[in-house]
Amino acid sequence: MLSEEIMKELSIPNEKKIVLLVMDGVGGLPHKNGLTELEAAKTPNLDKLAEESALGLTHPIGVGITPGSGPSHLAIFGYDPVRYNIGRGVLEALGLDIHLTNKDLAARANFATKDGNGLITDRRAGRIPTEKNQELCARLQEEIKKIDDVEIIIKHGKEHRFVVLFRGEGLHDGLTDADPQKEGSKVKYTEPLVPEAKKSAVIINKFIDRVGEILKNETKANTALLRGIARVPHIPTMNDLFKLKPGAIATYPMYRGLARLVSMDILKTGETIADEIATLKENYSKYDFFYVHVKKTDSYGEDGNFENKVKIIEETDKIIPDILALNPDVLAVTSDHSTPSLLAGHSWHPNPFLLHGRFIRKSPVTRFTEAECLKGSLGIFYSIDAMPLMLASALKLAKYGA
Amino acid sequence: MLSEEIMKELSIPNEKKIVLLVMDGVGGLPHKNGLTELEAAKTPNLDKLAEESALGLTHPIGVGITPGSGPSHLAIFGYDPVRYNIGRGVLEALGLDIHLTNKDLAARANFATKDGNGLITDRRAGRIPTEKNQELCARLQEEIKKIDDVEIIIKHGKEHRFVVLFRGEGLHDGLTDADPQKEGSKVKYTEPLVPEAKKSAVIINKFIDRVGEILKNETKANTALLRGIARVPHIPTMNDLFKLKPGAIATYPMYRGLARLVSMDILKTGETIADEIATLKENYSKYDFFYVHVKKTDSYGEDGNFENKVKIIEETDKIIPDILALNPDVLAVTSDHSTPSLLAGHSWHPNPFLLHGRFIRKSPVTRFTEAECLKGSLGIFYSIDAMPLMLASALKLAKYGA
Repeated sequence: MLSEEIMKELSIPNEKKIVLLVMDGVGGLPHKNGLTELEAAKTPNLDKLAEESALGLTHPIGVGITPGSGPSHLAIFGYDPVRYNIGRGVLEALGLDIHLTNKDLAARANFATKDGNGLITDRRAGRIPTEKNQELCARLQEEIKKIDDVEIIIKHGKEHRFVVLFRGEGLHDGLTDADPQKEGSKVKYTEPLVPEAKKSAVIINKFIDRVGEILKNETKANTALLRGIARVPHIPTMNDLFKLKPGAIATYPMYRGLARLVSMDILKTGETIADEIATLKENYSKYDFFYVHVKKTDSYGEDGNFENKVKIIEETDKIIPDILALNPDVLAVTSDHSTPSLLAGHSWHPNPFLLHGRFIRKSPVTRFTEAECLKGSLGIFYSIDAMPLMLASALKLAKYGA
Repeated sequence: MLSEEIMKELSIPNEKKIVLLVMDGVGGLPHKNGLTELEAAKTPNLDKLAEESALGLTHPIGVGITPGSGPSHLAIFGYDPVRYNIGRGVLEALGLDIHLTNKDLAARANFATKDGNGLITDRRAGRIPTEKNQELCARLQEEIKKIDDVEIIIKHGKEHRFVVLFRGEGLHDGLTDADPQKEGSKVKYTEPLVPEAKKSAVIINKFIDRVGEILKNETKANTALLRGIARVPHIPTMNDLFKLKPGAIATYPMYRGLARLVSMDILKTGETIADEIATLKENYSKYDFFYVHVKKTDSYGEDGNFENKVKIIEETDKIIPDILALNPDVLAVTSDHSTPSLLAGHSWHPNPFLLHGRFIRKSPVTRFTEAECLKGSLGIFYSIDAMPLMLASALKLAKYGA
């Protein structure tokens, strides 16, 4: 992609509509009967669409690089995933549906056990039940509303995990983890790595001490370890860069959070893929760019569950006609990264990419699979180039140079 | 491409000859009967050549980016099209066959109408006839030969359009347009965006005032608007970078101008493709790199005229044997950008690229079309890499590193 400055100059608003359907982690590896999940799935609608589309494959970040959800989503939204670094604390907060502001420092936290000598004996506090976590977080929030001039916001996660937000002026990131990493070591405070992060360190360390005081009578969860302490990166809006009015449809908080980072409107939806399509229909007139996220292809991939990943692909295939019935000017179907059930995790393999619209060179293929995408007219490219391609295909980019 | 410094080190002069045939805008989209222009054309010679060649596709600038003629040509000449920015005024001057020097500031200008209150009432002076334009430009040139120590050169274009060159020492660009953009607004002077452009602004604004005085009795064309004020970018010569002795054959002034920017010799030719091939034959012994430009594939593409674009492709096909009869060591046939008649304009779709020579991997194809090039041994790459590929194929590049 050209620089953000140039993209800003080239992008033109128009009435044409783009739908970006992200089947999270859809790409796979040969596994059951030598087939990938996409090859094993019955996808008559995607196959028909593929025949009428331009296909290709995209590298999320770089050849051989397995990305997390943060950078891989930034890339398909048209942002440099290396320039805009989403800290672990921020991602964790997004996953708990916390709305972050640019005054926030977010940390992922663990309840942990320390002994009488201040040594950490269990970094996960015996994996306390989520209900206990919830109760402890409520007590902490009740007792710690502010430290100095900084507001404290605490939200429980699952088991021993929670998130702390520090909201206030002058909070810089660039801090070490307040976590000794191994059991048997002393409680560790955070340290500033840059002078501007000094205030943050003071506040965070006071917070750790306050947690210790409040929970001193707990046998298991009597201290907290804080990691991945980070601010929300300052990211230009999609409207600013690409002149789009974008709406996001996602059933999972983290993906709504990622969409919020680039200033998409978050559209209220239900739990299922069908709910998401209903939301798309309801809001179709209000936006010119839709990000629709299907989560469970990735979840089942992560579980190593080939059969269920295939089922989700087949379920997604069924809603393709509903999207096409809206007659979008451009429809892209792709993924943020591959999650082969063979690996039971994210992988570095490029994503199948399908582009449907009026101004495309069709690909001589009959299915939407990894192998067929390789024959596609779009070739292999980088995820960050998907946005210029979608914009161009919707005639939303002016000519570069005279 | 590697950096210019490295290319300079690697390039070696030898006697081998390269012919680069640019069929401007030749790439298309499925249109009549689902065929592109190249697919619809009868091209027995190109087809036979394709069978014996390496094929591929090139992105002019970036995925999804539609380029103007300036950057797309720089790229196929082996220059970074983003680093070397050709201003609109410069391109307009090249299009009028004006020879620019590195002391020149070029502006594209419109005759316009202002009323008694100094408000612009018509930004195009009622689109005066070209003859009137010619007469007015002659009068202005007669009256304004110099402003301070700066020479003024005026050349008429079509209708209300003309070009002004400011030639002298210390003329920097970085200036706003002297154009209010909309009718009903006051005459606007240019303003320097950088301190070094102050002198340029003073001279240009004096020029605008002088035009107003000289044309004060004209009813329509009584003032001038100046836009795209730019200097020729400083571009290293092809001889310096690639050790080539290049000759350019083009029927249209703008392409001769672009070739002159990279210090090609401009070879006098006629109006037709046959004339261009005659020029190639006459000069074949004198150069080791020939840029041969076919314009009308682009012109008809821009007109949305599928049939005539097909005819020009067929006409070009007929001269392929004449080029091959010269037995060039390397022959490349490609385009600067696509101009699908479906879009009636430049587009972002990659260019068909054909490389013929002794040291190539042939492609398993039988035609020179967009779809067949996709199967080619060269894959999809960037236009800027075409030059190293042509040089390498002519054994004009040394080994990089030991």
